[in-house]
Amino acid sequence: METKPTEISSSKMFGGYNKRYKHFSPTLGCSMTFHIYFPPSPSPSHKFPVLYWLSGLTCTDENFIIKSGAQRAASSEGVVLIAPDTSPRGLNVEGEADSWDFGVGAGFYLNATQEKWKNWRMYDYIVKELPTLLSECFPQLDTSRASISGHSMGGHGALTIYLKNLDKYKSVSAFSPIVNPTNCAWGQKAFTNYLGGNKADWEEYDATCLISKFHDVPATILIDQGEDDKFLHDQLLPQKFEEACRIANVPLLLRLQPGYDHSYNFIATFIDDHIRHHAQALNLSRI
Amino acid sequence: METKPTEISSSKMFGGYNKRYKHFSPTLGCSMTFHIYFPPSPSPSHKFPVLYWLSGLTCTDENFIIKSGAQRAASSEGVVLIAPDTSPRGLNVEGEADSWDFGVGAGFYLNATQEKWKNWRMYDYIVKELPTLLSECFPQLDTSRASISGHSMGGHGALTIYLKNLDKYKSVSAFSPIVNPTNCAWGQKAFTNYLGGNKADWEEYDATCLISKFHDVPATILIDQGEDDKFLHDQLLPQKFEEACRIANVPLLLRLQPGYDHSYNFIATFIDDHIRHHAQALNLSRI
Repeated sequence: METKPTEISSSKMFGGYNKRYKHFSPTLGCSMTFHIYFPPSPSPSHKFPVLYWLSGLTCTDENFIIKSGAQRAASSEGVVLIAPDTSPRGLNVEGEADSWDFGVGAGFYLNATQEKWKNWRMYDYIVKELPTLLSECFPQLDTSRASISGHSMGGHGALTIYLKNLDKYKSVSAFSPIVNPTNCAWGQKAFTNYLGGNKADWEEYDATCLISKFHDVPATILIDQGEDDKFLHDQLLPQKFEEACRIANVPLLLRLQPGYDHSYNFIATFIDDHIRHHAQALNLSRI
Repeated sequence: METKPTEISSSKMFGGYNKRYKHFSPTLGCSMTFHIYFPPSPSPSHKFPVLYWLSGLTCTDENFIIKSGAQRAASSEGVVLIAPDTSPRGLNVEGEADSWDFGVGAGFYLNATQEKWKNWRMYDYIVKELPTLLSECFPQLDTSRASISGHSMGGHGALTIYLKNLDKYKSVSAFSPIVNPTNCAWGQKAFTNYLGGNKADWEEYDATCLISKFHDVPATILIDQGEDDKFLHDQLLPQKFEEACRIANVPLLLRLQPGYDHSYNFIATFIDDHIRHHAQALNLSRI
């Protein structure tokens, strides 16, 4: 089984290239796809910083690449975009595709502890396997300069991964993140199945619980949230995170955007601000 | 059957709204959907000019709205985008869905003359029914200020509709258009089935044939074509149109874009230039 990524498509955009790769993931025990957007390179030896984008429930590695328009700002700012898939696929675990908010397409960026879901180790895949793979196979990437962002379940992933790895990421941002999964139905369903009944284990993957442990978060956390998002009050709960940041004295810029919903139309509207937020942190880190 | 459009979805983007509508089309004899992007309005009485976008083979009214990112420039330039579907649907004509390049999703923006395909009247739908409907139902639109653009089969549609209706459209542009369908396999298959065997009838829907009749095309025609487009040499044939424009002394800006393919990644990269091309012509027409 080939663990090195094979290029399966390539398409020019904004002077750079969207490229899709396939590889066998030892962490997840299955074949996975991911996308990279490479900006136009100023020289053959140029090394780009990277921005990981974690997608939301039901998404694959394609949604962000097709719908966000992020390549425009990534091209002008010189940031590589990395878009992984959202769960293992093709393992045929009983019930894995029964619901849109659990199993396939719904990895929640954690390491499952329950035997049945033992392949669901998206946390290790994103934090460990993928950076090592990228560093080994793509010499044009400087994976030591990395930031992370995401949408909804992926916003949850970006925030929790960042808070647990402040040494690995220069900055974080999120669109409509699930900031307090221990207190919403999506999170409770996923955590019960992946992590079991012990709620102390759940808190390791809850940004609002994690933030209270940190007082030296170096960069401002940027969050955009649509006010007409139908999941705002039941699932996303940004005010819980805002309150926890205030208590922990963590700098947060939470922007409530009137009229916007939970879709990629919202993301496309504000993605440039996020790319620039990360480019600033990534370029500062080079000095 | 309701001929007035019913709103079936609405999503904010770049300060304006993507709205999808459904209506019964008397021209086509079936229910149709279309999208409108409304830019943010400077005042309740403001009237926007409109840009029709005709999509390519296999597309619906959704592809351009989801993938092009055209709303960014449409918002800043104050141009409404109209994205219709590409054929009648749901009529259950025998064989209508047998191929991806004919029948459903492949209306070729003509009025079919063959009995079997009598509902395929996308030319009349785009040129007559839709503008009247928009004018009657959306007072914020000034449909007397209209331009037209499109991709591939839709680029063919935009060019032929423009050339046959110079009084109705202020400007035209296209991405990767089928400019000479009488000389390529896609066109020959469609025209044989929709129009019958008389090639003189085909020329009425061939931009390269039509351009030779016109010497007073008022605005420069803008075409972008990717040089790595796999359909370039067999189906698209832009050099045939370029030569015909040269002979007819019609102003054409044909930009060959190195490395770009036939996809929406190409369209997204250059759509702003097209929106500005049309905005200039539409705003001039107001003076």
